[in-house]
Amino acid sequence: MTDTRIVTAAVLVIGDEILSGRTKDANMGFLAERLTELGIRLREARVVPDVPEEIIAAVNALRARYDYVFTTGGIGPTHDDITAECVARAFGVPLLRHPEAVRRLEAHYEPGQLNEARLRMANVPEGGTLIDNPVSAAPGFRIGNVHVMAGVPRIMQAMFDGIAPTLAGGDKVLSRTVTCDLGEGVIAAGLGAIAAEYSELSVGSYPYFRAGKFGTSLVLRGTDAARLSAATEAVRVLVVSLGGTAGLESEKSE
Amino acid sequence: MTDTRIVTAAVLVIGDEILSGRTKDANMGFLAERLTELGIRLREARVVPDVPEEIIAAVNALRARYDYVFTTGGIGPTHDDITAECVARAFGVPLLRHPEAVRRLEAHYEPGQLNEARLRMANVPEGGTLIDNPVSAAPGFRIGNVHVMAGVPRIMQAMFDGIAPTLAGGDKVLSRTVTCDLGEGVIAAGLGAIAAEYSELSVGSYPYFRAGKFGTSLVLRGTDAARLSAATEAVRVLVVSLGGTAGLESEKSE
Repeated sequence: MTDTRIVTAAVLVIGDEILSGRTKDANMGFLAERLTELGIRLREARVVPDVPEEIIAAVNALRARYDYVFTTGGIGPTHDDITAECVARAFGVPLLRHPEAVRRLEAHYEPGQLNEARLRMANVPEGGTLIDNPVSAAPGFRIGNVHVMAGVPRIMQAMFDGIAPTLAGGDKVLSRTVTCDLGEGVIAAGLGAIAAEYSELSVGSYPYFRAGKFGTSLVLRGTDAARLSAATEAVRVLVVSLGGTAGLESEKSE
Repeated sequence: MTDTRIVTAAVLVIGDEILSGRTKDANMGFLAERLTELGIRLREARVVPDVPEEIIAAVNALRARYDYVFTTGGIGPTHDDITAECVARAFGVPLLRHPEAVRRLEAHYEPGQLNEARLRMANVPEGGTLIDNPVSAAPGFRIGNVHVMAGVPRIMQAMFDGIAPTLAGGDKVLSRTVTCDLGEGVIAAGLGAIAAEYSELSVGSYPYFRAGKFGTSLVLRGTDAARLSAATEAVRVLVVSLGGTAGLESEKSE
């Protein structure tokens, strides 16, 4: 067994519109996928409303606990965009107008269009560095281990693509999936035994209903390719021994 | 001003598969919408992995803080389905095999198919009452203010439909939306003034890009219909005064 380098993250989605159901969040799923690809383990996600105390408490709880925190939402020009000031309060630093952010906004807007409301988007907590916004100029920022990004998925994704190369991932979690035509309950006992034997792997069982057929996806995840292969073979043999048909989805870094 | 009866809730999504990005959560958005319709304000949502300490801590944090907690995921027959035992530990009560739940499983499965793994789905914390599962029999349960439901969306939704009539909602939050063809930054100052004047309402601003056009949705929410109408009219006048075209989406209980 080799040492595993584990890097962790949390996502904090900020916005009343998610909690009211008006907007369906798409950022959490995107970040979950991309972080996993980078070898960063998303360990928690939270959605909080546009309430300063809630945002501040969540930022402080998550940044103390995980290697990285990624926030989405609340960095536009209107009164309900309060993420930057809340992050400043969470870090106990003043909120400053960032000269480079002002310059980018000046370059983006037509003369006369850069009003005070839009200039608010240049406010960054002291010590923060900018995160590029190739879509609509107004930047996000990073302070400490917290990355503050836009809520609009297209902008958030572009911001994340920009910062991804700066993130230090740990050992990648490899994943293998065995699909079978057996019910979860049929395979549960044997699968539990395999999970106990390969306790350093994560073994998940997910029922599905596809193309008119019920089945179960058995997902094995871990950083040690050899152990993963051995456990996957054990699951395949288990399925066949129970009279099922096993399919193996191609290996990927999940 | 009349007193507003406020009833709050949190959603706790349990499962490694959401945090790895393998499965995109659909339960949070569904519950956000349905709870809002019932006059219950979703104040927080969290996603935690299949780790007992994380589940227990989240259940206890959320149930102390909100009127209702709704969990999804982790109540199937396999070793990674640990929600029931974690909720029992969170409440400090034993996990018991519930006779009525056993009866339902016996009625559902063919003779010989109800093995020990499937019987685990009849385990309920002491004092818990069952939540019907019209799809696949294995019930959820309620204990205290915590409602424990399946993770498969179709089953979760059927469970929620069953318990919805038992939930006591507060005053419904009414919502009006003014759409306009102005950028957020143009309308921000005037909108902020309206939000300050109608501080008991929530006034949100959401940029959109639809059918090739940028615009902003201005969403006003509150329980007092008269104040909501007055504020909506103020927003409409603001948009027109800034040279924009305002559209009014039909009133709904958001």
